[in-house]
Amino acid sequence: MTLRFGVVGTGAIGREHINRITNKLSGGKIVAVTDVNHESATQTVEAYQLDAVVYPDDKALIADPNVDAVLVTSWGPAHEETVVAAVEAGKYVFCEKPLATTGEGCLRIVEAEMKQGKKLVQVGFMRRYDTGYVQLKQAIDNHVIGQPLMIHAAHRNPQVGENYTTDMAVVDTLVHEIDVLHWLVGDDYKSVQVVFPRKTQFAHDKLHDPQLFIIETQSGIVIDVEVFVNCKYGYDIQCEVIGEEGIAKLPEFPSIVLRKDEKLSAGILNDWKYRFMDAYNIEIQDFIDSVTKKGEPQGPTSWDGYIAAVTSDACVKAQQTGEKELIELQERPDFYSEKKTQTV
Amino acid sequence: MTLRFGVVGTGAIGREHINRITNKLSGGKIVAVTDVNHESATQTVEAYQLDAVVYPDDKALIADPNVDAVLVTSWGPAHEETVVAAVEAGKYVFCEKPLATTGEGCLRIVEAEMKQGKKLVQVGFMRRYDTGYVQLKQAIDNHVIGQPLMIHAAHRNPQVGENYTTDMAVVDTLVHEIDVLHWLVGDDYKSVQVVFPRKTQFAHDKLHDPQLFIIETQSGIVIDVEVFVNCKYGYDIQCEVIGEEGIAKLPEFPSIVLRKDEKLSAGILNDWKYRFMDAYNIEIQDFIDSVTKKGEPQGPTSWDGYIAAVTSDACVKAQQTGEKELIELQERPDFYSEKKTQTV
Amino acid sequence: MTLRFGVVGTGAIGREHINRITNKLSGGKIVAVTDVNHESATQTVEAYQLDAVVYPDDKALIADPNVDAVLVTSWGPAHEETVVAAVEAGKYVFCEKPLATTGEGCLRIVEAEMKQGKKLVQVGFMRRYDTGYVQLKQAIDNHVIGQPLMIHAAHRNPQVGENYTTDMAVVDTLVHEIDVLHWLVGDDYKSVQVVFPRKTQFAHDKLHDPQLFIIETQSGIVIDVEVFVNCKYGYDIQCEVIGEEGIAKLPEFPSIVLRKDEKLSAGILNDWKYRFMDAYNIEIQDFIDSVTKKGEPQGPTSWDGYIAAVTSDACVKAQQTGEKELIELQERPDFYSEKKTQTV
Amino acid sequence: MTLRFGVVGTGAIGREHINRITNKLSGGKIVAVTDVNHESATQTVEAYQLDAVVYPDDKALIADPNVDAVLVTSWGPAHEETVVAAVEAGKYVFCEKPLATTGEGCLRIVEAEMKQGKKLVQVGFMRRYDTGYVQLKQAIDNHVIGQPLMIHAAHRNPQVGENYTTDMAVVDTLVHEIDVLHWLVGDDYKSVQVVFPRKTQFAHDKLHDPQLFIIETQSGIVIDVEVFVNCKYGYDIQCEVIGEEGIAKLPEFPSIVLRKDEKLSAGILNDWKYRFMDAYNIEIQDFIDSVTKKGEPQGPTSWDGYIAAVTSDACVKAQQTGEKELIELQERPDFYSEKKTQTV
Repeated sequence: MTLRFGVVGTGAIGREHINRITNKLSGGKIVAVTDVNHESATQTVEAYQLDAVVYPDDKALIADPNVDAVLVTSWGPAHEETVVAAVEAGKYVFCEKPLATTGEGCLRIVEAEMKQGKKLVQVGFMRRYDTGYVQLKQAIDNHVIGQPLMIHAAHRNPQVGENYTTDMAVVDTLVHEIDVLHWLVGDDYKSVQVVFPRKTQFAHDKLHDPQLFIIETQSGIVIDVEVFVNCKYGYDIQCEVIGEEGIAKLPEFPSIVLRKDEKLSAGILNDWKYRFMDAYNIEIQDFIDSVTKKGEPQGPTSWDGYIAAVTSDACVKAQQTGEKELIELQERPDFYSEKKTQTV
Repeated sequence: MTLRFGVVGTGAIGREHINRITNKLSGGKIVAVTDVNHESATQTVEAYQLDAVVYPDDKALIADPNVDAVLVTSWGPAHEETVVAAVEAGKYVFCEKPLATTGEGCLRIVEAEMKQGKKLVQVGFMRRYDTGYVQLKQAIDNHVIGQPLMIHAAHRNPQVGENYTTDMAVVDTLVHEIDVLHWLVGDDYKSVQVVFPRKTQFAHDKLHDPQLFIIETQSGIVIDVEVFVNCKYGYDIQCEVIGEEGIAKLPEFPSIVLRKDEKLSAGILNDWKYRFMDAYNIEIQDFIDSVTKKGEPQGPTSWDGYIAAVTSDACVKAQQTGEKELIELQERPDFYSEKKTQTV
Repeated sequence: MTLRFGVVGTGAIGREHINRITNKLSGGKIVAVTDVNHESATQTVEAYQLDAVVYPDDKALIADPNVDAVLVTSWGPAHEETVVAAVEAGKYVFCEKPLATTGEGCLRIVEAEMKQGKKLVQVGFMRRYDTGYVQLKQAIDNHVIGQPLMIHAAHRNPQVGENYTTDMAVVDTLVHEIDVLHWLVGDDYKSVQVVFPRKTQFAHDKLHDPQLFIIETQSGIVIDVEVFVNCKYGYDIQCEVIGEEGIAKLPEFPSIVLRKDEKLSAGILNDWKYRFMDAYNIEIQDFIDSVTKKGEPQGPTSWDGYIAAVTSDACVKAQQTGEKELIELQERPDFYSEKKTQTV
Repeated sequence: MTLRFGVVGTGAIGREHINRITNKLSGGKIVAVTDVNHESATQTVEAYQLDAVVYPDDKALIADPNVDAVLVTSWGPAHEETVVAAVEAGKYVFCEKPLATTGEGCLRIVEAEMKQGKKLVQVGFMRRYDTGYVQLKQAIDNHVIGQPLMIHAAHRNPQVGENYTTDMAVVDTLVHEIDVLHWLVGDDYKSVQVVFPRKTQFAHDKLHDPQLFIIETQSGIVIDVEVFVNCKYGYDIQCEVIGEEGIAKLPEFPSIVLRKDEKLSAGILNDWKYRFMDAYNIEIQDFIDSVTKKGEPQGPTSWDGYIAAVTSDACVKAQQTGEKELIELQERPDFYSEKKTQTV
């Protein structure tokens, strides 16, 4: 069985997923496309030589009976409406982050999905499919390092543009740690505090960079995450879990090792795209395989999207108040109860 | 366009490629299958739910007009005949190593292919698609380390079975280094010598293990390859190129890093399958893409298969004589002239 | 010229320094010894075959005209009185941490020393002599990583005894980071906050372990230090300085690298003594050399002892209040103005 | 007891040892000095403010009853005569490599020493005192990696001067591996073969660089040593022992780790002096301690000097013949029987 996708949003990430499904992965096919910029949709169909209908809007695309799954890669604020409509139509949804821009919006999707009686939605948090994070999770789940007590993490980009503001360090950047870290330790967040170190001279006016987030979980795990988006030297993701009996850390991204000019060196990526390239492929292949073979996606759920939204809000508030802010989630419905590690 | 494969040989590696093409990659489809064990072929079609014809033999399979490309994964000694027949029928061929068991056999394939006027055959030397080797090649081609002068390499397996004999260290094991190292430095081999160190107690009677191969190229690059197939600790591939201006080395296979029990450690693979899993996928996808988009494969050629066969013979002879043996190749036809780095 | 030492306190650390000066280093000699336990002093003279007078107390030892320098390795609360007396007698002093148990006590030493018109006192903060920290300081001072913005540090011991209480994580453990980190970045501390993660099951009742200290400097550098004294896996000191243009990190303690049992591993120390063994030697040799050749010690000063005392007090208070506590230092006298990197 | 040294040869290495004994180590004192260049000797005494007699020649120096030990740091060809004379006078000797320039010369020293009835001579092979090599030896002796089967080693210098000829790659460079490797595995050498790779453009006319030495031991361990003295990138010593149950490798020289400019890097030394600085110190301190406390040195013996000389000769012959050359040693006298690991 081939999973037939309708794509809502043919910008950069949309086109990448289209290319992925069309030319790299197995079992998926793009059959419909739409974009608020109609020409972008049309050009995409041509560029990738798709056998796909171009629809005027998401509603029409969702209504197409040939569309099994809706790939939502539009502008963030538009996600909620499209996802709710697709879910209400009983379609599967793969939605890039954010699921919705507010916790309430996410809850509306949660409600719509629960009404359908089965999971339909996967949110595009690809890190859970990165082999490094998967190995970390296995080490934790297999009690290799004992009970986790702390996590030291860092999210570094070489630089960002002038329109990247302080809050975007949460919404665009930290959000990936927000999703992957609670999954890693199987715990919910309780509070967050932000400390602003001395600002780098390379950050623009509207951005305080770097920032240090101190997040506590319900069980008392303390997580510190450095977010530094003008670190200059490269794109670098670090994650180290301190357990009662040992410590486990993400591997460096693999690179040949040079001995040259009095230095022993390995390359560090400059571009974030390469860092999680494999994870993106595995993520979408897993969505296709789970939906076609098991009838529902098994990746990050609408509830995970909700957690990310509420936590992001608290983090932004903590940036503004300088105080420890609570992260208050509604009770998790049984519908979204945690299962064992799902990927790989 | 979908590339329609006929598979000759449904043993372990055959089934893996079938699974790969059917469930992981894009653009390929299994439409025909055969095996000397007819039942194996039939079971394979069922197991992978293939929409494929089961043929009594390779001749019939090759004759099927629906078959665009023949995937040769039968017993080594049977390769030559199948490949020649497929080439003569104008079909594309992806052939697992060895292309043929003798240099002469390989030359017959070369001749048949040249008669067809275009490249049809790719040999399954997957290492050229490993990102580590690709990075090494780029470093060399981009003059990062200057002119290569030496290579230190090692090929280690945790253990081998009782029927693994001294010569298989060449034919089954070293052959991968034989292919990838001349590609890496863009040079042909000149001679080989074998030194037998003290034998490990863990090797069976018919196997001298480890072995050290000293290979020289036409331009004077000296390559030492340790082959150690009962090293016990894991599957480990090492390659370090010593250049006039620096040294480049393959990365270790990525693994999370643990601090535990007074040790800082990373995992080493036990099973060779995981080491080149990605390379296998990229290799077959590249075959599909090149054939369908460019009309010919761009991976290791029949001539590379010939080089591997002649070099393997010299290595086995050197094992027996203890002397430096010449590696005498026919002149490379223009048809197979080297181009720039082709993969990734 | 030989520097003649009188040693006050012949416990473990006292004996180690005696052995060091007598059998490993050049230019020093033990000529006098005292201890509140007279027998310990006598036994030490015998055990190390010293040609040294045993005095009944520190006053008598200090009064010996043969004593050039007093090595203070007694019980912490006794340090202040001995150091003040030695300084007032114009003797050089090498004093193990703490210089005094209170900021006020340290200031009394500072005053006594300033009255003498030259530096006489060095405090035993050996990390400044560790080649790793020295390299870090050089990288910072040479602008290799640009302006420091953050430091991530960790101080981990495999386990501690039952009488190790929560405050000792500051006074016995963190105090080394307190000294070395302000020296590293050439800045003074401003505030500290403590976060208590979930407690490890391996900590005794009176100890909350691990702890996370968030320290800010006057210029806004944010330092997080994990103190984890029952980490089980080994003795491990980590320090990573995040700068505007790059990051510099302490090396791992050197160890041979093993490939064994599917692991690539290096050893981690279990015992803290080996970690800074070389630093202890270099520290005392530097004290001897500086005093004999330049007329004053050039290592950590009385003022550094004062900084450590005041900062430790604030850290202990922050443990108790859970709030951000200010670190309020008196103005640094010109007498103790910072010079360039002094060691190596 | 202080060990009183007479120094024969006040060139660079002589002065370094004088400085070491005078200003860094414990228990030694320079009391006499001589050099063929009398002025050099006189200047050295002044420069290091030694309380030492300047003698016209080695004979006179040896005859001084105040001289307990003779430190031989003269020109290599002069070593034998001085060492024999010192030994016959019953003096202890620390002799820099070579002990003598020929095997026969070394045997004359061996005979003279055996006549004295106890070990008097230590040869300056400092690598045995390097903590990395010591850890390797412990790993081997403790059966951590099982029976050694192979060693892969490399000795790389950034560059050498114009008067460095092909044979000096043995006599000046490889000689350190020659000494340390047989000590490491507790075995004697049997044969050596040299392979010359393509020559680097950075080597002068009289030098073939790099070179690959293949050495076999009596028990069949195969050792390959790359000697590359114009490698440009730094001074780099590599040694990896392949055992039946695992592999152990020297650590890299410790360095802070940088993340900068898309590179993760650690420094590589340029100057060989820093690489074994600690080993030199430990070596001389061990000589002083062993002689004064145990009555004889416990480092590399005259017999080790003999092994180095005979093996060097065979290596130079193998450079010239291109053949496998035998390394034929006389039978080891019981006087020089191997004991357990002696250092550290």
